[in-house]
Amino acid sequence: MPKRKDKLTSNIGWSISDQINVHGLDLPSEILGHVNLGDMAFMQVTGRRPDPAESVVFNAIAVTLVEHGITPSALVARLTYMGAPESLQAAVAAGLCGLGTVFVGSMEGASRMLYAALPRDQAGQGADLGAIADDVVSDHVAAGRIVPGLGHPVHKPVDPRTPRLFQIAAENGKSGDYVRLMQLIQEKAEAQSGRQLPINATGAIGAICCEFGFPQEIIRGFGVMARAIGLVGHILEETRDPMAYEIWQRTEEEILASSGPDRG
Amino acid sequence: MPKRKDKLTSNIGWSISDQINVHGLDLPSEILGHVNLGDMAFMQVTGRRPDPAESVVFNAIAVTLVEHGITPSALVARLTYMGAPESLQAAVAAGLCGLGTVFVGSMEGASRMLYAALPRDQAGQGADLGAIADDVVSDHVAAGRIVPGLGHPVHKPVDPRTPRLFQIAAENGKSGDYVRLMQLIQEKAEAQSGRQLPINATGAIGAICCEFGFPQEIIRGFGVMARAIGLVGHILEETRDPMAYEIWQRTEEEILASSGPDRG
Amino acid sequence: MPKRKDKLTSNIGWSISDQINVHGLDLPSEILGHVNLGDMAFMQVTGRRPDPAESVVFNAIAVTLVEHGITPSALVARLTYMGAPESLQAAVAAGLCGLGTVFVGSMEGASRMLYAALPRDQAGQGADLGAIADDVVSDHVAAGRIVPGLGHPVHKPVDPRTPRLFQIAAENGKSGDYVRLMQLIQEKAEAQSGRQLPINATGAIGAICCEFGFPQEIIRGFGVMARAIGLVGHILEETRDPMAYEIWQRTEEEILASSGPDRG
Amino acid sequence: MPKRKDKLTSNIGWSISDQINVHGLDLPSEILGHVNLGDMAFMQVTGRRPDPAESVVFNAIAVTLVEHGITPSALVARLTYMGAPESLQAAVAAGLCGLGTVFVGSMEGASRMLYAALPRDQAGQGADLGAIADDVVSDHVAAGRIVPGLGHPVHKPVDPRTPRLFQIAAENGKSGDYVRLMQLIQEKAEAQSGRQLPINATGAIGAICCEFGFPQEIIRGFGVMARAIGLVGHILEETRDPMAYEIWQRTEEEILASSGPDRG
Repeated sequence: MPKRKDKLTSNIGWSISDQINVHGLDLPSEILGHVNLGDMAFMQVTGRRPDPAESVVFNAIAVTLVEHGITPSALVARLTYMGAPESLQAAVAAGLCGLGTVFVGSMEGASRMLYAALPRDQAGQGADLGAIADDVVSDHVAAGRIVPGLGHPVHKPVDPRTPRLFQIAAENGKSGDYVRLMQLIQEKAEAQSGRQLPINATGAIGAICCEFGFPQEIIRGFGVMARAIGLVGHILEETRDPMAYEIWQRTEEEILASSGPDRG
Repeated sequence: MPKRKDKLTSNIGWSISDQINVHGLDLPSEILGHVNLGDMAFMQVTGRRPDPAESVVFNAIAVTLVEHGITPSALVARLTYMGAPESLQAAVAAGLCGLGTVFVGSMEGASRMLYAALPRDQAGQGADLGAIADDVVSDHVAAGRIVPGLGHPVHKPVDPRTPRLFQIAAENGKSGDYVRLMQLIQEKAEAQSGRQLPINATGAIGAICCEFGFPQEIIRGFGVMARAIGLVGHILEETRDPMAYEIWQRTEEEILASSGPDRG
Repeated sequence: MPKRKDKLTSNIGWSISDQINVHGLDLPSEILGHVNLGDMAFMQVTGRRPDPAESVVFNAIAVTLVEHGITPSALVARLTYMGAPESLQAAVAAGLCGLGTVFVGSMEGASRMLYAALPRDQAGQGADLGAIADDVVSDHVAAGRIVPGLGHPVHKPVDPRTPRLFQIAAENGKSGDYVRLMQLIQEKAEAQSGRQLPINATGAIGAICCEFGFPQEIIRGFGVMARAIGLVGHILEETRDPMAYEIWQRTEEEILASSGPDRG
Repeated sequence: MPKRKDKLTSNIGWSISDQINVHGLDLPSEILGHVNLGDMAFMQVTGRRPDPAESVVFNAIAVTLVEHGITPSALVARLTYMGAPESLQAAVAAGLCGLGTVFVGSMEGASRMLYAALPRDQAGQGADLGAIADDVVSDHVAAGRIVPGLGHPVHKPVDPRTPRLFQIAAENGKSGDYVRLMQLIQEKAEAQSGRQLPINATGAIGAICCEFGFPQEIIRGFGVMARAIGLVGHILEETRDPMAYEIWQRTEEEILASSGPDRG
């Protein structure tokens, strides 16, 4: 537990009758009309405005995470909205609850792996990335753990988001040792396993987040914020072209047939 | 309940091994690097990319909604994270659950009021906005209901976000009958009540959302998605400069003193 | 908004080093081993222990609400757990988020209807229940609203829970004007519509809650607490006999076929 | 990821027009009026009715977990309800989201520790519990980890719930090797550290859960279901004697003073 403190403090912002200040900037005159939503997300995490190159890369990361079709979290949001259409916010919240270790967690896992293998103060200092990649893969094989950020059930041999994200990062000065290390880890892992192990989007994003130096404990948050945007879109579609009721009814009927009083 | 259907459908997107399509665009080549996060949110709701003017206005709306200090939902996210730091996503979700009728709902309420007073097919057709505003205010007074989107406990006589949002809207072709009607409703309401009733940020945003023609049932969603971004920032600050534990301890101690065995 | 206050207070309970007091009782010596979980729920809402008859009826109500198969909220809990197995609590939370106006809300709706038709201080005073029932049905017909607590898609002509709940209520002194009024409303509604409109379980529970005099704003809470218990059972089954992954995969495949690049 | 399957199945229950079956029993005739809410929770987890002794112990465990004053999760539920009073279910859900590793997780942690030290097939077989307890404490000290289920910030030198829970367990045949092992671990840990380390309620419950043989992955679920009941009580009190608004306002004012434009 944290220590007791005399005074509650926060550096995010403050407001008085005629001013609203966020991260040291006057919201109406210095933020509104000057930054886009991705820049604002960057500010929430770093406390400062991104420069133009950072803005492009960070927005690309965030945009990537918004939407990937009928995921479990989209199903959850739609099923929840069916029962409580008065609470759009709770349907989004329910959808976010499943963005844990299995799905969005791999982004955080990739960053943790890269930071552990190459601490931030050693990045860009000429470390032997090939040797580090060998160690990372060997350690994961020895421990029987999969390498986070590699492999995809659908996108093979290449996740089409990855080369594009790496291109955008390279064009904007965010492709350094971490991106290279991720690529080397992939090569070693494919060689070692004899299987196709593309760097998936969460692996690419995890590596680029390391290039930014984002703290690893917040990286999952990028997936969470982006998915909140995506889920609003799914809920809107559910109001027009619903699928939740049909999925529910089919499931109930199938369970009744397999497990009910007349099961074979 | 909806009708049963033979075939589940969705128009948001699809992916196969080497392609990911979102709203009819190829995500890697046509979206990433070309749109910012606010544009992507616009696409989730409209199914199309915003034009440059729409992008500026929509991003300004969304950015406005990200952050407003230590709100109840920020407190909720911080208190939840203290108990379950392994689930950042659940802390954000918990924070979103309270964005209901009392807070973010006023944005939706303003839009509903404006659409009801001036249906979309009558906007821009020379309606007598002053007469409509009179009716709106009279109806609310008669029913004993407050006018949504007016008044603020702190920001008086003007909510500093409102003139800036209206300026951005005007500069980008999104200031028409709905913005004017909201302003007239404010004037009538202030005259009628003799009190300062500034158009607050949710009122301004509700009016601009009507200019866009956004469906009223999704407008609350803009607040939800933006606040998800804001909450990630609060959770990150909580990891560095916590307040949840102190707030909890103080509350427990005060309750024990007022309501415990030794209360006066 | 509520008024500011000098002192935070709570009457639920307090604890000091060697004592824990809940609703005025010493938890270890006066509660543990003496009350069951349903009684404890009753205490949370009323501030006192139920008498033996109240205990039987209230436990029956709560038990009824625990489980009803593969509901949308069970699907939500299972889908959420698949993505975040480290957060059982968030999977339960997600499942609860959908217990809104469409499903559990009908219990609250029935109670609100009955309290509005027969205020608590007029119950048991010889009111003309048949005339009241006529008015209730006429009002709903005139307004084009369905009568809450009537009708069920599966359980016809009788919801088998309803006669049993009414029997338990009658045997324990909780069958008075509200139960009778609900039954008369059903008769009138069936006569008026010519359709089978069984009192469903939420209608029966809504009526019995009125017999207890529970405040209407908390009645939905009985469904929420009971369902939390049910969802833990579904999550445990999901760890052993999962269905979430299969449902997700089938849905994705069907959407890809209907709405993907090769759709007919 | 799980394997694909041809047929969705569930053994929890089923319903047809005139029957509702839960865990193999007819809900109306065999469950309602015969079991209390704690028994129903036991059935959800074990698939069978508890015997009378099991019922007493399990209900005592569950009742213990319902209420412990103004916890962070109670604050979260109250703050959420203030913003979205139309969604009682979402306020409960928000409150549950924080029942993670820090709070309720210690119950699961105690069970995991005990099962790991004494596998279920070795319980009751005359294992040298003292030696096992020595190893457990040494291992935790060596790893720098605290022993789950020991210590309490308020309840010292004894958590008053613990002796009562152990008494109820002993009177009902649920006090065996696991309870004894937990007690020995406490003795060793106190001797080793020279500090008061009472077995707290979650430690006592974790040990008793092992006596039942409950699967460790579901034990946190008992805390979650019980707290859902508790939170409904807090929300009801919040409607009558609110504290959320006052806590929010005080926090905002303090942050403004410490971190706003006029900070010292």
